[in-house]
Amino acid sequence: MPKNRKVVLKSHPQGPVRLEDFDMVEDETEALRPGQVCVRVDHLSIDAFIRTTLDGGGFHQSAKLGGVVPALGVGTVVESTDAAFAVGDVVTGPMCSQSYAVLPVAACGKVDTQLAPPTAFLGALSIATGLTSYVGMKYVAKIHGGETVVVSGAAGAVGSLAGQVARLLGAGRVIGIAGGPDKCRFLTTQLGFDAAVDYKAGDVTAKLAEQAPNGVDVFWDNVGGDVLDAVLMNLAVEARVVLCGAVSQYENMANVRGPKNYLKIAERDASMLGFTIFHYPDRYAEATATMAGWLNSGKLIVHETLEVGLDRFPAAVRGLLDGGNTGKFLLKVG
Amino acid sequence: MPKNRKVVLKSHPQGPVRLEDFDMVEDETEALRPGQVCVRVDHLSIDAFIRTTLDGGGFHQSAKLGGVVPALGVGTVVESTDAAFAVGDVVTGPMCSQSYAVLPVAACGKVDTQLAPPTAFLGALSIATGLTSYVGMKYVAKIHGGETVVVSGAAGAVGSLAGQVARLLGAGRVIGIAGGPDKCRFLTTQLGFDAAVDYKAGDVTAKLAEQAPNGVDVFWDNVGGDVLDAVLMNLAVEARVVLCGAVSQYENMANVRGPKNYLKIAERDASMLGFTIFHYPDRYAEATATMAGWLNSGKLIVHETLEVGLDRFPAAVRGLLDGGNTGKFLLKVG
Repeated sequence: MPKNRKVVLKSHPQGPVRLEDFDMVEDETEALRPGQVCVRVDHLSIDAFIRTTLDGGGFHQSAKLGGVVPALGVGTVVESTDAAFAVGDVVTGPMCSQSYAVLPVAACGKVDTQLAPPTAFLGALSIATGLTSYVGMKYVAKIHGGETVVVSGAAGAVGSLAGQVARLLGAGRVIGIAGGPDKCRFLTTQLGFDAAVDYKAGDVTAKLAEQAPNGVDVFWDNVGGDVLDAVLMNLAVEARVVLCGAVSQYENMANVRGPKNYLKIAERDASMLGFTIFHYPDRYAEATATMAGWLNSGKLIVHETLEVGLDRFPAAVRGLLDGGNTGKFLLKVG
Repeated sequence: MPKNRKVVLKSHPQGPVRLEDFDMVEDETEALRPGQVCVRVDHLSIDAFIRTTLDGGGFHQSAKLGGVVPALGVGTVVESTDAAFAVGDVVTGPMCSQSYAVLPVAACGKVDTQLAPPTAFLGALSIATGLTSYVGMKYVAKIHGGETVVVSGAAGAVGSLAGQVARLLGAGRVIGIAGGPDKCRFLTTQLGFDAAVDYKAGDVTAKLAEQAPNGVDVFWDNVGGDVLDAVLMNLAVEARVVLCGAVSQYENMANVRGPKNYLKIAERDASMLGFTIFHYPDRYAEATATMAGWLNSGKLIVHETLEVGLDRFPAAVRGLLDGGNTGKFLLKVG
């Protein structure tokens, strides 16, 4: 078996995560037990939830000191103990920050590379990104035709899909909130958003009021904090706020800043809706087929930011939290 | 016409409202214009929303410097310009802090004193208290039989009804959160709550976990702040949090403390539901009939705290905010 290169957690970050919180180590690749496969990790998905695993408890899973860091990935089976998985099969799963992952077959999903390239299964066709966007907009936000939809973190992996899905489901006006003029331009010129608001350039509440004069019917929040508060001030009656994430708070989960304007939910007959995609397994097939159709017909634009080399994993996580990526952020491991 | 005694706002409170923020004045009662009635105010309803009107803007209506303070009341028509309202009729409406109110007939609701005593129309049969409890539990929380329901401000006017309504609609377990052992005892011995948690005596999160070991399915929040955060930590999957009020925040509306545990809404597939009773006019008749039936059959227990004398209006408002009342808080004006 090849050696396994691993990024391991050296210290729980105190506040902002630092490159020094990780170590690069080399180890033997584990021997397979029955029901396991060994996967060569080709790409890792750099997602905001990774930050929440580093605190030693909390919102999602947890990374242990000296252990690899949770991350979703796509890779190629190099050894198998299960007849359903052959050497050479491309699979997704919780690969973590390493070059070879030994996984139970139940944690692996075989992907159909005829349908889309492997990295699409970490983005537009992944459960945590594409299927989340589709199911959340269709079955949680329940968009009615013509409504005004706002997405925060709109240039990110989930946000860039969620805004496009909203439009494809019939939204009347789609507005993205993102950081900086480049991302805002990306939203309106490349992804077909109707407008973009730069949260780094002035009063988001006022700028959103200009862009959504009749109020916001659906808000898809990936960010939390000040951005959530600004949108709450602009809710239309019967608005739905879908809580997908809160990346602005993930470096401070012990003391999250709650939305101080949450009483607008009461005042406007609105609702704040949580959802985890894992409660909607009966929608996966429909979501995958629809997203793949939109992707292959060119209706859904996908943009990827690529970082290369496993040793860049800590820098990639830091970069994601600093808003450095546009679209899906991938780390090419090999 | 008799003289009109009025409590007027002298200064917008800075933080906690003080008795010195009000003045008592005597004035001529206005002459009636067509379409108006003059009502002798018999009882005023002392409600938490009154505090929010004193800041000169904000959540509900607004009290002006030198003007009377918004408050709902019940009284007797002493002069009328409208054939539909006769002298002697008992009516409810936005009487405000005064002994005689001149109101447009459209703002008055004639009450059926055969159905219940006049003060019931400020409590169990009022839109803002009783109908809110019924419609909110039935059509917003949508209680399923057997669920665990938690109510904050449970010994207050809305809370004491909301908990009882939940039980009458089939809740499996009703838990009240209130301040102090007397109120907690009141809930369990007089109102039929299954358990009570004293938020002034220790860790609400832990005590609620004991009382609701399978999690909270419905939370009716009148309080906000720490209490809301404690309940969010105990949500069951698919829980509904109904936002009815946030009395802990009403003295600090410029800087509300948002719920820092709001991400539990996402994690637990839960929702936070705002509602204003005025969006449910088609449910008023059903709610009134049902509440009156429960009231007259003894299934719904109503408790009133009575203060006497219009000059006690400021002290009553201060007392309400300090949690001094049990059940409906009324001021007898005459």
